[in-house]
Amino acid sequence: MMMKKKMLVDERGKKYLIDKKLERFGNDLGVVDLKGKKEGVIVKSHKGHEFYLVEPTIYDIVKKMKRTVTTLLPKDIGLIITHLGIREGETVVEAGTGSGALTIYLANAVGKTGKVITYEKRPEFAKVARKNLEIAGLVRKNQKIIGLDERDVDEDENSEEEEGLYNVIQKIGDVTKGIEEKDVDVIVLDLPDPWNVVPHAKKALNKARGRIATYVPYIEQAKKTVEALKEHGFFDIHTYECLVREIEISEKGVRPSTRMIGHTGYITVARVKPEEENEE
Amino acid sequence: MMMKKKMLVDERGKKYLIDKKLERFGNDLGVVDLKGKKEGVIVKSHKGHEFYLVEPTIYDIVKKMKRTVTTLLPKDIGLIITHLGIREGETVVEAGTGSGALTIYLANAVGKTGKVITYEKRPEFAKVARKNLEIAGLVRKNQKIIGLDERDVDEDENSEEEEGLYNVIQKIGDVTKGIEEKDVDVIVLDLPDPWNVVPHAKKALNKARGRIATYVPYIEQAKKTVEALKEHGFFDIHTYECLVREIEISEKGVRPSTRMIGHTGYITVARVKPEEENEE
Amino acid sequence: MMMKKKMLVDERGKKYLIDKKLERFGNDLGVVDLKGKKEGVIVKSHKGHEFYLVEPTIYDIVKKMKRTVTTLLPKDIGLIITHLGIREGETVVEAGTGSGALTIYLANAVGKTGKVITYEKRPEFAKVARKNLEIAGLVRKNQKIIGLDERDVDEDENSEEEEGLYNVIQKIGDVTKGIEEKDVDVIVLDLPDPWNVVPHAKKALNKARGRIATYVPYIEQAKKTVEALKEHGFFDIHTYECLVREIEISEKGVRPSTRMIGHTGYITVARVKPEEENEE
Amino acid sequence: MMMKKKMLVDERGKKYLIDKKLERFGNDLGVVDLKGKKEGVIVKSHKGHEFYLVEPTIYDIVKKMKRTVTTLLPKDIGLIITHLGIREGETVVEAGTGSGALTIYLANAVGKTGKVITYEKRPEFAKVARKNLEIAGLVRKNQKIIGLDERDVDEDENSEEEEGLYNVIQKIGDVTKGIEEKDVDVIVLDLPDPWNVVPHAKKALNKARGRIATYVPYIEQAKKTVEALKEHGFFDIHTYECLVREIEISEKGVRPSTRMIGHTGYITVARVKPEEENEE
Repeated sequence: MMMKKKMLVDERGKKYLIDKKLERFGNDLGVVDLKGKKEGVIVKSHKGHEFYLVEPTIYDIVKKMKRTVTTLLPKDIGLIITHLGIREGETVVEAGTGSGALTIYLANAVGKTGKVITYEKRPEFAKVARKNLEIAGLVRKNQKIIGLDERDVDEDENSEEEEGLYNVIQKIGDVTKGIEEKDVDVIVLDLPDPWNVVPHAKKALNKARGRIATYVPYIEQAKKTVEALKEHGFFDIHTYECLVREIEISEKGVRPSTRMIGHTGYITVARVKPEEENEE
Repeated sequence: MMMKKKMLVDERGKKYLIDKKLERFGNDLGVVDLKGKKEGVIVKSHKGHEFYLVEPTIYDIVKKMKRTVTTLLPKDIGLIITHLGIREGETVVEAGTGSGALTIYLANAVGKTGKVITYEKRPEFAKVARKNLEIAGLVRKNQKIIGLDERDVDEDENSEEEEGLYNVIQKIGDVTKGIEEKDVDVIVLDLPDPWNVVPHAKKALNKARGRIATYVPYIEQAKKTVEALKEHGFFDIHTYECLVREIEISEKGVRPSTRMIGHTGYITVARVKPEEENEE
Repeated sequence: MMMKKKMLVDERGKKYLIDKKLERFGNDLGVVDLKGKKEGVIVKSHKGHEFYLVEPTIYDIVKKMKRTVTTLLPKDIGLIITHLGIREGETVVEAGTGSGALTIYLANAVGKTGKVITYEKRPEFAKVARKNLEIAGLVRKNQKIIGLDERDVDEDENSEEEEGLYNVIQKIGDVTKGIEEKDVDVIVLDLPDPWNVVPHAKKALNKARGRIATYVPYIEQAKKTVEALKEHGFFDIHTYECLVREIEISEKGVRPSTRMIGHTGYITVARVKPEEENEE
Repeated sequence: MMMKKKMLVDERGKKYLIDKKLERFGNDLGVVDLKGKKEGVIVKSHKGHEFYLVEPTIYDIVKKMKRTVTTLLPKDIGLIITHLGIREGETVVEAGTGSGALTIYLANAVGKTGKVITYEKRPEFAKVARKNLEIAGLVRKNQKIIGLDERDVDEDENSEEEEGLYNVIQKIGDVTKGIEEKDVDVIVLDLPDPWNVVPHAKKALNKARGRIATYVPYIEQAKKTVEALKEHGFFDIHTYECLVREIEISEKGVRPSTRMIGHTGYITVARVKPEEENEE
């Protein structure tokens, strides 16, 4: 399952996501000839500088892709995936799509036998996300964004594309109004008012294993979300904040970086309440 | 892909991982009759207390499973998975297996079309890990631990087991002596001297997309690892520390927990150097 | 300016605050004879173990003193002192006294030419604090707690006591009802509803240099405090949280402690608004 | 004890440290007439904008003063003062002086009856520090920097200056070569190789209450320092790292700042070993 892009890394560590078919690339360190080169080799520019030609990881794609909004950082996505215990084969509903960073990670977490349905209410964001999801091999070139009329054809896939995961479905929609899916394993919300989605999430989630995660920057939002979750019977509710420090290791010595991201958001995870036992 | 265990959660939030076939369970809140009950219902004990009967997630399994050693926390596993960009279909070599917590997460990250080969040099640890991996549906009941003579038969799988991922291979072995696999996508090391594995990792990794992550508690270990990675040409080397704070949200107000895990370990990630271009 | 106690430290680092006149001390490491010994020597117990006889610092006194409530940690006290820029000669009003930990540090910060007036509404707490303040040389043996009838005499100081700072005045009182002092340089509040003190603080503070600091455990309290400060024209308002990690340095290597205090409280600092210019 | 400067704060919170005698001040918000105005009033610019005329605190002075090197942050200075329990009347030796930020705080901590001797080996740094210490009222206008020939006269103080603390002595010198003082209560080191000062510190410190603190950015430096302290019999050795998060409280909600200082330095505190008991 290869990416739809290849990546060049120059001697300074600068990364360039480029088209698979691109044959020449240049920056201030010179021009490199990529004709006939496959990922996994070092190429030299006409100025004699080395470039590493490699496959991008999903981390690289998320870092370099076009963004419409601030996206969740890998540290927070990792916490959501591992604390929810998202796994191969599960069905995940996500909202909003944003630029698709979280979608890319979630799609890889549920894998070939799983599925991610991602809602976005702003069509222009969904279109940018489609491009990013295409690069990551998660939606087909002609795949329809459900609810967006513009592109009706979902078929006629060419053989070239067969290498992707293709387990993402994009929808235009506002999940505070309702979630169409049933029997969902996991719901992940990156939107400003997750408490408005909680009643819909309760209905949509599978009662045996349904879980939810929300991500919000302000503490008041986290509080309102937790209150809504409690009110609707969710259990195993926890709110976390994740801080990552980069450690600089050089000849001069070891020390944490002077610069640090002081805060991104609060993550709340919870499980849906099972059914009341049938009284008979 | 269901777990080999079911889970009961009592009114205080206490969790019990129990056998799928268990029909009666009791604690100080009373005895519950589980006969004919499926996950996703609330059952009442003879004392009138509610128990939630649900499916455990891999987070639950990792939290409740038998441990031989300290295992990586989900926060650190999440950081490794997202920063390496581990994804569906990849081949991962892991060492040491320990209790299998990291293995469980890695196996779900690479999914149905991927594979995890996990090395452990202490047979008694590998045996405990096998039980944990069985519960998570990752190794078959009769699956051989390669290098351990005791169990020779790897066949004769019964239909009952067909629901798992079964993408993990356990091996007895010391990766500081060498790694048998070739063309590996990812290597993850949770052992005290990762620098001794670096030269072997270099050979084993796929040159187009090979990545490595190491986890060590002491800063000197992280430093020696980074120095070995640099010496062997690895690039995109970063060392991180991840801190998670739980936020307590109650009627009294919102505040981070007074107790906090102050440190677990340092995570280093890096990419292997591609091949030198053929001069002709 | 010596402390009213001396301190023994045994070979394990265990500290004992003892009376200046105590001549024999014993624990499981044996009995030591302190007769005629002055601080600054090593004494041997009858079992041959070494004890260090030293002067306690105010850090030691605060750590070992009797407590009625949770006291601020040195990390938070340090932040308050340095961010407010409390200095020699200033007049500080503090509430509530609690066990007196913060009082001890504040009294030393303002020094010989300064003064700390500390309010406590619960007489039994004020009495415990008096003992702690006596040990630290900040109140005289017979000093009255203003508003508490029991002890009327404030005079007749004996020569023995003349070594202390004696710059603390204890009062029984509720500062949410009002602050009696005028022209105060600094107000420091460690109580649950600092917003109720803000209007009184505004009146009590010197307009050229008056500053305030509040300490609260919950974020809602910090928010209400900041809102009250803004409403009353305070400026240069900042809220901080201070986290301290202990670093363990041993032969095995260097790492932050596994255990850490995850949260104590939020500190807010601000300056009072100057007078409107006289229009004439 | 007033500062040698006054401070203006404009409507945006911008601070200006200005000369006591300055009668007119202007920025883009207009010109203000300060003639006859004393600190503690609001003055209006000719454009109608308000400026607060106040006394600067030592925090303000440290923030706005001229710097030759990176100075310790108040958070770290506070930790040193409170963990060492520095108090009124003590004698502190400090090295290097740097820009004098730590000196200013230490001088205020030991107060009128205490003393700070500050060593700096680079004369040009000591001269800049003198200006800063003058502003804070800690050295007299004509006070000699010991070891620096340029200014020989230490007398002839005019009455104008009598308001300061004047408890700081500046010296040109390298404490890794030796410390001239005896019977010192506290030594604070902000220099790259504190381990080279440890043997000299041992001799200079009072055996009953001598304490030391060191501040270094790299973990290797902290380790070498702790090893030297252990080797020379120091006890009660602790190494800390202090992290401060600013909390943003606005109408939009509450959240920690996105930007944060990820690391400044490691602080090590310790006590000197008392004398061996005289055998007679």
